[in-house]
Amino acid sequence: MKRVKLVVAYDGTNYCGWQLQPNGITIEEVLNRELTALLGEEIRVIGASRTDSGVHALGNVAVFDTDTRIPAEKLSYALNTRLPEDIKIQSSEEVDPEFHPRHCDSVKTYEYRIWNHSFANPVERLYTKFSYYDLDVEKMQQAGDYLVGTHDFASFCSAGSQATTTVRTITELKCFRDPEEPRRIRIRVKGTGFLYNMVRIISGTLMEIGMGLKAPEEMKDILLACDRSKAGPTAEPQGLTLVGIEYLP
Amino acid sequence: MKRVKLVVAYDGTNYCGWQLQPNGITIEEVLNRELTALLGEEIRVIGASRTDSGVHALGNVAVFDTDTRIPAEKLSYALNTRLPEDIKIQSSEEVDPEFHPRHCDSVKTYEYRIWNHSFANPVERLYTKFSYYDLDVEKMQQAGDYLVGTHDFASFCSAGSQATTTVRTITELKCFRDPEEPRRIRIRVKGTGFLYNMVRIISGTLMEIGMGLKAPEEMKDILLACDRSKAGPTAEPQGLTLVGIEYLP
Repeated sequence: MKRVKLVVAYDGTNYCGWQLQPNGITIEEVLNRELTALLGEEIRVIGASRTDSGVHALGNVAVFDTDTRIPAEKLSYALNTRLPEDIKIQSSEEVDPEFHPRHCDSVKTYEYRIWNHSFANPVERLYTKFSYYDLDVEKMQQAGDYLVGTHDFASFCSAGSQATTTVRTITELKCFRDPEEPRRIRIRVKGTGFLYNMVRIISGTLMEIGMGLKAPEEMKDILLACDRSKAGPTAEPQGLTLVGIEYLP
Repeated sequence: MKRVKLVVAYDGTNYCGWQLQPNGITIEEVLNRELTALLGEEIRVIGASRTDSGVHALGNVAVFDTDTRIPAEKLSYALNTRLPEDIKIQSSEEVDPEFHPRHCDSVKTYEYRIWNHSFANPVERLYTKFSYYDLDVEKMQQAGDYLVGTHDFASFCSAGSQATTTVRTITELKCFRDPEEPRRIRIRVKGTGFLYNMVRIISGTLMEIGMGLKAPEEMKDILLACDRSKAGPTAEPQGLTLVGIEYLP
């Protein structure tokens, strides 16, 4: 028996998120089905981040236990031949049997992307949120700076969260226009853990600040209020990508 | 009566190319249908570039004549509310009635993109060609340099072309890895005119050179041969984007 760690990339457009659910196809379901068929034993993956419906990933992480003799490094190739084009393994490796993708310390990087122009861009539509308001990225960055550090992020957590505490640590928040394509705004957030919908609520709030509906300084009050109703809307899922997860030694 | 110029962006994934045809929906068809419905008069657009099935555009150009009193600049907004998400007008303006998008002198910029990594990337799949061979971009650039200038590009023209001459001018050909994402190779080609499938055949040939199947110097012989069978394969359509068209005064 060995434990295998997969780095999984997917286009979330056509999936009801990561986690198994009765009413729609999910990434976890496809991985379980194809691993089970490939290895001839019942496989159940454990995912690091249970991304929402429509959210994308370049590097989500999953582990599973198997008796296979196929070397762990080869599994990515074998599995990819079975997976659909919108889910592809980026690497596979054997890990310590104690390794757990959610319980081990990690830094996750998310990116929320906005297409900010008078007109929507068809080739960006699946991976950005479109906004025709001229967003003030400097103000968004000013506001975002209040969120860096360890805080109670209850204002940025949707109802339905099973978290026992709403204290989380954001280690970095950068809001900038893409140097090559300034119509693309990128909100890059790194942290050791995130609440349900946290990055999308932060992004929705930053967009209100970018539009001038709220002053950057209000972000401080929103944070201190620990009240979801003070923050902005949950930004649409297709703008969000889980870029990667780095596990700390 | 006035002539209106549209800059049109589209995701070609779900279309049988630009040009009207009996067996599938095309960009031209959707524009004609929605302009006719919007303006209440029969509209037929004339397109600059009749892109193939699956090819994308950030800035194709179309013109049409209309009696409408709606200012030309406002038409983009009105039309976009009717268009599907994968076709969006980027600008509309009145132009001289003599302006013709194919007969007026212009420089077109195309980009062919390759995702060059051991594993395919789901969120790049619709807009790149995937290649797991480690491509040598320096050699591709060396080979591409032979194509810059005015040449007979018969070797890079698919059968079925209606062109009276196969002489064309490429003003620039740059082959490089994306500075931020080196797994993305971009072949950027500018020229005053292109033959049927020309950029895709050039890209397919450059990929063979990048793989080491052909030496960079062979590009010179391929060009001089004026024989389609000497060049590489026609690279898949989804990697190609018509970036824009600049009309010369």
